Amino acid sequence: MPTRPPAEPGMTLEQVVTPALIVDLGALEHNIAMLARRVAGNPHGVRLTPHAKAHKCVEIARMQMAAGASRMCCQNVAEAEAMVAGGIKSILLSNEIVGQDKARRLAALAHMARIGVCVDHPDQADALSAAASSEGVTLDVLVEIDIGMGRCGVAPGADAVTLAKYIASKPGLHFAGLQAYHGAAQHLRKPAERKVAIARAAEMARSTAELLRAAGLPCEVIAGAGTGTYENELGSGVYNELQCGSYAFMDADYGRNETATPFANALFILTTIISAAVPGRAVCDAGLKATSLESGLPVVFGEDGVTYIKATDEHGQLEIASNAKIALGHRLRLIPGHCDPTVNLHDWLVATRNGKVEAVWHVARGW
Amino acid sequence: MPTRPPAEPGMTLEQVVTPALIVDLGALEHNIAMLARRVAGNPHGVRLTPHAKAHKCVEIARMQMAAGASRMCCQNVAEAEAMVAGGIKSILLSNEIVGQDKARRLAALAHMARIGVCVDHPDQADALSAAASSEGVTLDVLVEIDIGMGRCGVAPGADAVTLAKYIASKPGLHFAGLQAYHGAAQHLRKPAERKVAIARAAEMARSTAELLRAAGLPCEVIAGAGTGTYENELGSGVYNELQCGSYAFMDADYGRNETATPFANALFILTTIISAAVPGRAVCDAGLKATSLESGLPVVFGEDGVTYIKATDEHGQLEIASNAKIALGHRLRLIPGHCDPTVNLHDWLVATRNGKVEAVWHVARGW
Repeated sequence: MPTRPPAEPGMTLEQVVTPALIVDLGALEHNIAMLARRVAGNPHGVRLTPHAKAHKCVEIARMQMAAGASRMCCQNVAEAEAMVAGGIKSILLSNEIVGQDKARRLAALAHMARIGVCVDHPDQADALSAAASSEGVTLDVLVEIDIGMGRCGVAPGADAVTLAKYIASKPGLHFAGLQAYHGAAQHLRKPAERKVAIARAAEMARSTAELLRAAGLPCEVIAGAGTGTYENELGSGVYNELQCGSYAFMDADYGRNETATPFANALFILTTIISAAVPGRAVCDAGLKATSLESGLPVVFGEDGVTYIKATDEHGQLEIASNAKIALGHRLRLIPGHCDPTVNLHDWLVATRNGKVEAVWHVARGW
Repeated sequence: MPTRPPAEPGMTLEQVVTPALIVDLGALEHNIAMLARRVAGNPHGVRLTPHAKAHKCVEIARMQMAAGASRMCCQNVAEAEAMVAGGIKSILLSNEIVGQDKARRLAALAHMARIGVCVDHPDQADALSAAASSEGVTLDVLVEIDIGMGRCGVAPGADAVTLAKYIASKPGLHFAGLQAYHGAAQHLRKPAERKVAIARAAEMARSTAELLRAAGLPCEVIAGAGTGTYENELGSGVYNELQCGSYAFMDADYGRNETATPFANALFILTTIISAAVPGRAVCDAGLKATSLESGLPVVFGEDGVTYIKATDEHGQLEIASNAKIALGHRLRLIPGHCDPTVNLHDWLVATRNGKVEAVWHVARGW
């Protein structure tokens, strides 16, 4: 019942069933090596813990670990299960989970890998402690603090200390530090805005860690950062784990940040022109079931005079300049607006090099 | 490798793994019966051909066929394959397909079911004719005309006749009529606007059909209509197939049309509050990987004082009024902004009645 893979190793791009997600292996390897080199040997001992929510793909996680990552982040239990099944030995679930069922699934993974998870309420800790005790394992627990994102997390300071003490008192749980990710800062367009946001976040994390230390609860981990801001966390002297995810693939929205990025576009939607009945326009087979729109339309890659102007369920509408030749059956590559939810629309990543399919990788969707 | 089903028959809603898509069977049965009754015995002999792109689910297609539908519409080859494998005996692929591979897959289905498909270019007809000839089958072919949507389709009138003649000349193809769907009209908010748009579309379809008749190519089928406009096509005296899809589920965007709809909300995202660390707000586990945003945010169902205000990848942010009690672990039902792409985010539909899971149905994603 899984969907049919759109390609097989050895195929050319012309043979791939469209729409399909294409990974340019050269660009992916470049991106993984580039960030690994940037983080390696930094003076603060900061570690790279890439986020699997961007790719949901064991093969890419293995490449990131081989390049020196210290563990993988996941955002839900199904991702963590897929990573552990694929041989990843240390995972941080950088999110809250609720309920006995998910706590049990997570604790069961701790027989095979070191497992961390975030908490922002004593009830979550209770469920995790019960599950860990029942499985006879220990879970590393970070207290998530809200350092400006306005989503999950307790307030920095005293509230975080109270919760950390509670965690430290529970069997099966080990208080390990702070989760202090500032997602809202990743796409602030100007470097100066991102710098200010992360400086504020780092100060809140630093002062909270100091209170924790005073309470006898040192933070082994202060985690956060994404592809848009990691240079700031890396230099902060506060953060020691960087949870970048999108850097592996990049996308059109990160392309709009006003910074020269060292990362190349490695993820594309391969699409076919299925209608060219009217001059000046064409329709491709990648609509909003193939590319996520919430961070903007996809951008046509490497074709002059072709603009993606509208998406409906199964159709992408293109404007064609008079000098552009786009015939029925022509194939285009689109850069998705936002890589993470676009990957989540597909079951397969088609890994290519020089126009040839090298591998077809499964995407671990679901919860 | 398919994702794990979020539920099993017999479970309560409290036991379903969230986020999950929940179908209220009472509402679904009501919607299917309501439109079937409305179309049955109409004076123009109009047939209902519900669109499977809304649900991608064989079990629901069977319910629609049992209620009197004359065939199912699909929007891509994978949907058609799933429907035929599930026993549906007549399919219209209401879209263009391009390339030998997809043409062959479609023609292969014609051994097991009657298969129709749309065309707006001679090259598509060539590929379909080659595939049908090679399989020894006949495909019904509709010429798609652009009656105001500006997407696929040749111009009404002479261009359509030229293409129909070409189709009629090709081995393995049977010219069957016109596809004249006006998707852009479905969400015009005012009934009068929708009426005007469909009256114009119907007139273009009627005059094109007349030219075809004069050329010796009578239209057995003039197909179109959706949940927003079907009353207009039904009364037009021109259309004879109605391709409504969303009526089975409904969604928040159709709820914003200014018409009292006879259809009930049958599709919900079941979600759990995973963070409630700060008074006045909460976070649920249904973000933009669980609910499609392109037609607006989901709407909280049946809970006063709880508003879904923002979606990120794995999180839905909620505003909680001071009188609302929303504790960690509480479960909510969300009405998706747009049902079709939300279904496409999930692999499973959890069919429920009176708070109990009756069945878990597979969603035929992919292409």
